[in-house]
Amino acid sequence: MTGKKYVYLFEEGRADMRDLLGGKGAGLAEMTNLGLPVPPGFTITTEACREYNARNREFPPGLEQQVQEALQTLEKKTGKVFGDKKNPLLVSVRSGAAISMPGMMDTVLNLGLNDETVEALAAATGDRRFALDCYRRFIQMFSDIVLGIENSRFEEILERYKKQKGIQYDYQLDVETLQKIIDDYKKVVKEVTGEDFPQDPKVQLNRAIRAVFDSWNNPRAVVYRKAHQIPDDLGTAVNVQMMVFGNMGEDSGTGVAFTRNPATGEKVLYGEYLMNAQGEDVVAGIRTPHPISKMKEDLPETYKEFERVCSLLEKHYRDMQDVEFTIERGKLYMLQTRTAKRTASAAVKVAVDMVKEGLITKEEAITRVEPTQLTQLLHRRIDPSAKLEVIAKGLPASPGAASGAVVFDADEAERRGKSGEKVILVRPETTPDDIHGIFAAQGVLTSRGGMTSHAAVVARGIGKPCVCGCEALRIDLENKSFTVEGIVVKEGDLISIDGSTGQVILGAVPLIEPEFSEDFRLILEWADEVRKLGVRANADTPQDAQRARSFGAEGIGLCRTEHMFMAQDRLPIVQEMILAETPEERRQALDKLLPMQQGDFYEILKVMDGLPVTIRLLDPPLHEFLPNTEELALEITTMRLTSGDPTEISRKEAILKKARALAEFNPMLGHRGCRLGITTPEIYRMQVEAIVGAVVQLLKEGYHPKPEIMIPVVMDARELEILRELCLEVIREFEQKSGFQLDIPVGTMIELPRACLTADEIAKVADFFSFGTNDLTQTTFGFSRDDAEGKFIPQYLEKKILKENPFAVLDRDGVGKLVKMAVELGRSSNPNLKLGICGEHGGEPHSIEFCHLAGLDYVSCSPFRIPVARLAAAQAAVRHR
Amino acid sequence: MTGKKYVYLFEEGRADMRDLLGGKGAGLAEMTNLGLPVPPGFTITTEACREYNARNREFPPGLEQQVQEALQTLEKKTGKVFGDKKNPLLVSVRSGAAISMPGMMDTVLNLGLNDETVEALAAATGDRRFALDCYRRFIQMFSDIVLGIENSRFEEILERYKKQKGIQYDYQLDVETLQKIIDDYKKVVKEVTGEDFPQDPKVQLNRAIRAVFDSWNNPRAVVYRKAHQIPDDLGTAVNVQMMVFGNMGEDSGTGVAFTRNPATGEKVLYGEYLMNAQGEDVVAGIRTPHPISKMKEDLPETYKEFERVCSLLEKHYRDMQDVEFTIERGKLYMLQTRTAKRTASAAVKVAVDMVKEGLITKEEAITRVEPTQLTQLLHRRIDPSAKLEVIAKGLPASPGAASGAVVFDADEAERRGKSGEKVILVRPETTPDDIHGIFAAQGVLTSRGGMTSHAAVVARGIGKPCVCGCEALRIDLENKSFTVEGIVVKEGDLISIDGSTGQVILGAVPLIEPEFSEDFRLILEWADEVRKLGVRANADTPQDAQRARSFGAEGIGLCRTEHMFMAQDRLPIVQEMILAETPEERRQALDKLLPMQQGDFYEILKVMDGLPVTIRLLDPPLHEFLPNTEELALEITTMRLTSGDPTEISRKEAILKKARALAEFNPMLGHRGCRLGITTPEIYRMQVEAIVGAVVQLLKEGYHPKPEIMIPVVMDARELEILRELCLEVIREFEQKSGFQLDIPVGTMIELPRACLTADEIAKVADFFSFGTNDLTQTTFGFSRDDAEGKFIPQYLEKKILKENPFAVLDRDGVGKLVKMAVELGRSSNPNLKLGICGEHGGEPHSIEFCHLAGLDYVSCSPFRIPVARLAAAQAAVRHR
Repeated sequence: MTGKKYVYLFEEGRADMRDLLGGKGAGLAEMTNLGLPVPPGFTITTEACREYNARNREFPPGLEQQVQEALQTLEKKTGKVFGDKKNPLLVSVRSGAAISMPGMMDTVLNLGLNDETVEALAAATGDRRFALDCYRRFIQMFSDIVLGIENSRFEEILERYKKQKGIQYDYQLDVETLQKIIDDYKKVVKEVTGEDFPQDPKVQLNRAIRAVFDSWNNPRAVVYRKAHQIPDDLGTAVNVQMMVFGNMGEDSGTGVAFTRNPATGEKVLYGEYLMNAQGEDVVAGIRTPHPISKMKEDLPETYKEFERVCSLLEKHYRDMQDVEFTIERGKLYMLQTRTAKRTASAAVKVAVDMVKEGLITKEEAITRVEPTQLTQLLHRRIDPSAKLEVIAKGLPASPGAASGAVVFDADEAERRGKSGEKVILVRPETTPDDIHGIFAAQGVLTSRGGMTSHAAVVARGIGKPCVCGCEALRIDLENKSFTVEGIVVKEGDLISIDGSTGQVILGAVPLIEPEFSEDFRLILEWADEVRKLGVRANADTPQDAQRARSFGAEGIGLCRTEHMFMAQDRLPIVQEMILAETPEERRQALDKLLPMQQGDFYEILKVMDGLPVTIRLLDPPLHEFLPNTEELALEITTMRLTSGDPTEISRKEAILKKARALAEFNPMLGHRGCRLGITTPEIYRMQVEAIVGAVVQLLKEGYHPKPEIMIPVVMDARELEILRELCLEVIREFEQKSGFQLDIPVGTMIELPRACLTADEIAKVADFFSFGTNDLTQTTFGFSRDDAEGKFIPQYLEKKILKENPFAVLDRDGVGKLVKMAVELGRSSNPNLKLGICGEHGGEPHSIEFCHLAGLDYVSCSPFRIPVARLAAAQAAVRHR
Repeated sequence: MTGKKYVYLFEEGRADMRDLLGGKGAGLAEMTNLGLPVPPGFTITTEACREYNARNREFPPGLEQQVQEALQTLEKKTGKVFGDKKNPLLVSVRSGAAISMPGMMDTVLNLGLNDETVEALAAATGDRRFALDCYRRFIQMFSDIVLGIENSRFEEILERYKKQKGIQYDYQLDVETLQKIIDDYKKVVKEVTGEDFPQDPKVQLNRAIRAVFDSWNNPRAVVYRKAHQIPDDLGTAVNVQMMVFGNMGEDSGTGVAFTRNPATGEKVLYGEYLMNAQGEDVVAGIRTPHPISKMKEDLPETYKEFERVCSLLEKHYRDMQDVEFTIERGKLYMLQTRTAKRTASAAVKVAVDMVKEGLITKEEAITRVEPTQLTQLLHRRIDPSAKLEVIAKGLPASPGAASGAVVFDADEAERRGKSGEKVILVRPETTPDDIHGIFAAQGVLTSRGGMTSHAAVVARGIGKPCVCGCEALRIDLENKSFTVEGIVVKEGDLISIDGSTGQVILGAVPLIEPEFSEDFRLILEWADEVRKLGVRANADTPQDAQRARSFGAEGIGLCRTEHMFMAQDRLPIVQEMILAETPEERRQALDKLLPMQQGDFYEILKVMDGLPVTIRLLDPPLHEFLPNTEELALEITTMRLTSGDPTEISRKEAILKKARALAEFNPMLGHRGCRLGITTPEIYRMQVEAIVGAVVQLLKEGYHPKPEIMIPVVMDARELEILRELCLEVIREFEQKSGFQLDIPVGTMIELPRACLTADEIAKVADFFSFGTNDLTQTTFGFSRDDAEGKFIPQYLEKKILKENPFAVLDRDGVGKLVKMAVELGRSSNPNLKLGICGEHGGEPHSIEFCHLAGLDYVSCSPFRIPVARLAAAQAAVRHR
């Protein structure tokens, strides 16, 4: 062998060689070395794929030679010979990246068949029908994947013959018909490519390897990687493996299974298989398969062996596995094992159970649950007291309930979804081409396919409700409707689905909020034991605060007060305050707002009794409380031209004048936050009076309110110094009036680069910093979220200028640098400084990891993200011990 | 003596104790020690004033005691006794801060006079009229300054008696009248304060010292300090000095003088004096004084002595001095010396002359000219070929010419000036209360007062044209007009003034640009020898480029291309390009723009032949080239309601739709700069083609074009990488087509915090960085210039949250930190990186000093600022050698 090693026999690999061999290759290697029944084969490395891409779709030198050598070893091991007319070796050629991308890339089965070897196969197996079926499948698959011929060309032929013969399933086709089909298939190939179907198995293999390499960059794989944040430069491995046949009759079959229930986590073998079929029949969901438990009856010996293998794999990998297998004439072959994907509740239950079984430690358990997945557990379910008009029942493929308008294709789902409409995507089955529709829909309903069908896997992955294999549905794509039990449901009609029970319900139904399972509570309790970061919530209402507290929030990190100003009954008073001509008029309006604000704070502080509540004083510029100038100007012009009421016109003109005076070119960078506090101190004073008034009221009632006053948009210590003094003045006044000693910290949002750069000065007059990473991201990048997300960020992600949307995932290179600087400078001048984050990043695991590393004291996020944050904080603590 | 030393006898001080003793005190001390004729006295330190303010207007302990002791020493030295009925000591009490604030703070003369000592003074001098005149002045001054009684109350009385007696000048008042005036004055004091005028000299002194301390914080002093960027916490010293009398008859007098001409720098004694007068008579400009040269005839001996003193002072201080003196019965007394303020051209000439005279070195000469003052030399003058209707001639008090509408009060001047109107402020004389009007006006014209009157001093200080003492003018403030030679000029009428000749001209006149004097060229040449920073210009047109080159620009640091898009003949094509529905349509529009752009670049590169020209590709968001949506919407609504042309309506609607689609919430943070380059590469490609096309054209013609392509608004290296590749592609294409080898650097504006934070990555794909500190300031502070400067920055300056407007003076604490970081990171990964600045800070001396310290290669500023930048860069180099 010369140069780099690109090809590994299965026995040369190991589980930890996943990056090089891909997940499938590493699994096959590990199973081979464990002595499990794996058909022999070899893996071409991901590195070979990378070099192939780097060389502009040229095989790297040495690769072909190494494949030949591995093939010879395979021939020796199996006693079969590639292309042999007596005992031909047939292989599968499968993709397998380091990170699983189910169904995204290509596979070719039965490779090695040609007009001669098919006869040998017929002779060797004594089953001509089987051999022809394999050849028929091979031509179809190879043509689709390698030659790029539309699969529908072949499906049409197949359907035509099935109709002719009046049969339903492929395996019912007889020898003569199969031979005709093969002939017709070959004609299609000749017609489309201008060449005969390739007969040389080595040519077949070479081209199949190229096709698998190429499939790394097919559009659906690219979309999938973007959605799952998988780097584009990993490449895929290629697994070449001796074929075993699940389509050799009624003692043969193929299936996929989980070592535990991937929806619930229950410890029971879970999966499906099809007798007399090849692998793609199961995954494609064309025939509805049997549950794995039925194998126990059909093939009890094989089932026992399968149980043994699964148990061994779980112990070996110390995690739940997702396996593929084929039974050839009663003998079990393992074709894949990998860590199983699972719903959030399954992940939680499996992790907790495995701790109880002694398989893993508590800390390992914490790392076994993907934090963002947890929000699934917070999904709605159907109110049990509701009267439901259940019209069908399918497989409960992804938990949670949803209601929406029925749509029948993915593009329409995306269109309506984007415009804010709630839709349920209804399909006979889904394919990778439907992904964008699934993302846009509230839930998915299919009439075919099982728990491991495409729709089910994808929906579980993104936490959307899904009901699969609901065969009672008769879907008419042409007329955009489905019929079930005589009921016709048309596009746009409302239905509901319950992905936990499989129910399909007519109309929208009342949904209720979820509760935590005991396992859920337990794993979060373990997370709380190890995490270093506190977790608070962003909440502006008593309801939000209550929910946050029930999810385990240890306080409120951001209570915005502008929404209180926006309330319908208050906006007129707020406008009165803004339009005031004199300080007295302004004070009068503020006096009306004061008791309302005090009421707001009273309720929130009461709900959060004993826990800190960080209240941010008014943040937006005042013009946000006035009507849009363009609309108002149009209204006035229209009124004038249509002889409207002159007093009304002049009233509106006054408002327009003020709105114009306050209008800003760049409101984000305008007269807002503490700048308002400096120039119009009456507003902040009123707010502080409301806070402190509420505190005194609660103290009198025996509560323990713990507010913290937060000044927004600070860029210089002096701003904070002035406004802190204003706060302390009010606090002192109330102390004297009430006799209570009030300990109310005053701190600031750190949300501007200059605040980070001068954090040492600011920290001298701050009790706490809370990083407002939304605004800090905007100013650091110099683009506003409103303007960037819809316009150029998508292109920036596509062109890889941005790895992530920085408003979703905290940018460590820029924003993170500033945060770290602020933490260091701040602590250097004020060792008691409390540090938190209250941007939306506070609920995003990557960003939470950053916060842990930066040494913050807490993160604050939306109430539904609290469990995510608790778990992510714990994982960060475990990872960076 | 116990505790701190607050009081210094003149002989105890030195010139370098200016911070402690104030400018006046340090000057008096130095002159005393030089043996010059200075009336004895002592100085109360600025520290005492600071403590007085810190103690809430309480004298610090020990101060009164020390004043008493110093007073006793003074009594011993003079043989006079404070409050003595035979030989009373009279003193002046004058303010004197470390940094001169002419006329801003208070002075009390003749202190020590009362009903008894006035008689003693009469007896001792044998001049009762004189003594009463002193007493009258003292009561008036003390009442005004110390007791806070409106001066007009006293002026009315004085005027009444002068009228009664039919006399014009104060010194014509006789003894009886003076006695009556004194009695009336005392009545006013009693009436207003309820108490008698204080008779105890010690009480007088104590209260006068307090009043001087307090005058540090009077409103006009505060305004002055803000305008001149003088810190508020320095405090003033107080000088208590034996009185000498310029009002002792016709061999007495008082005056102020410069050791050279402060307007031209000519080496000749220059100044004015009044016979038989006290100091305030000269400064107030009430009587028009004699030029100093007249003293030669009137008092030849005294003049000789004065010449000797002035020459000695200049040699001692090695700089031009501004002195105050009094002549008491023929004997010269020096009351003040300080470094003289001067016009820019005087500063230049004096500096160059002093080098020639061997007094100072070239490097010292460089530091003797205030860089911002240089722009004065670039002020306009009247076209000599113009036919002028000269209606009067006054004193040429501050050089330069100006035209504008006549206004008669400072408030009106400010009002009109703010609204953008050009005005000339016309006043009988100006007082410190008029400062805001002088700032707002194009120039100042007064009918009274000399070259050292308030108007003249202030106007010279800020480089505005001023004509003083134009006595032919009869100003009628009541009716807002002036009359001269029968011509009536009313408020709002246009006039012109020439501050270099003293001419007053009817109507607006043609003004022309200035040329450099030889001295000016020389000092800039010396500056060029020592400066480390290169100086380039921001210029977008061949005219600007030409001017910049003539001012000594070494290249263009910022050539903006958007103005080229805004040109009237191009805007429709630009709009066509924006409204294009397909890339082809867009390309068609761009094809029309290409030759125009190429022409722009051709001209500029030709003017700048051999020098680098940094061309910034398109920066603003595209909607800036479309009409305002609000106006357009109003127009459409109006057209609809008034049955307008339907095709025109729908055309406008299409534009509105596009404008709305492109509209942004925060254009500053929007889809602009390189973001456009990434998403619509056709535009940048066209621009690069235009640049490279122009280069090839010029090369063929034998020129040496040196363009540099600058990509704006970069926040990540990847953006620049992509666009750099686009540029290089075009360059390579042209290289192949033309056969020329093209060396065109590609670099980026650094104008976002993230660019600074990731400058090491960016520098890897950049040939140069140019700091765009305007935008960097906006994003670092998080406020946009448009929204902040009009709204809260003024209040921020007032409340001292900001020391300076950060858009004028680079903020070292925030923005500066980022710049330094970017310089270090950038050079660390690319040692050949060229570094410049092209924000407006590039022409501001403080900011230029920062650039020098940060190690930039060049600054770039507007053409008129080039000389400022050359000099400021040299001063920075000298200062930080």
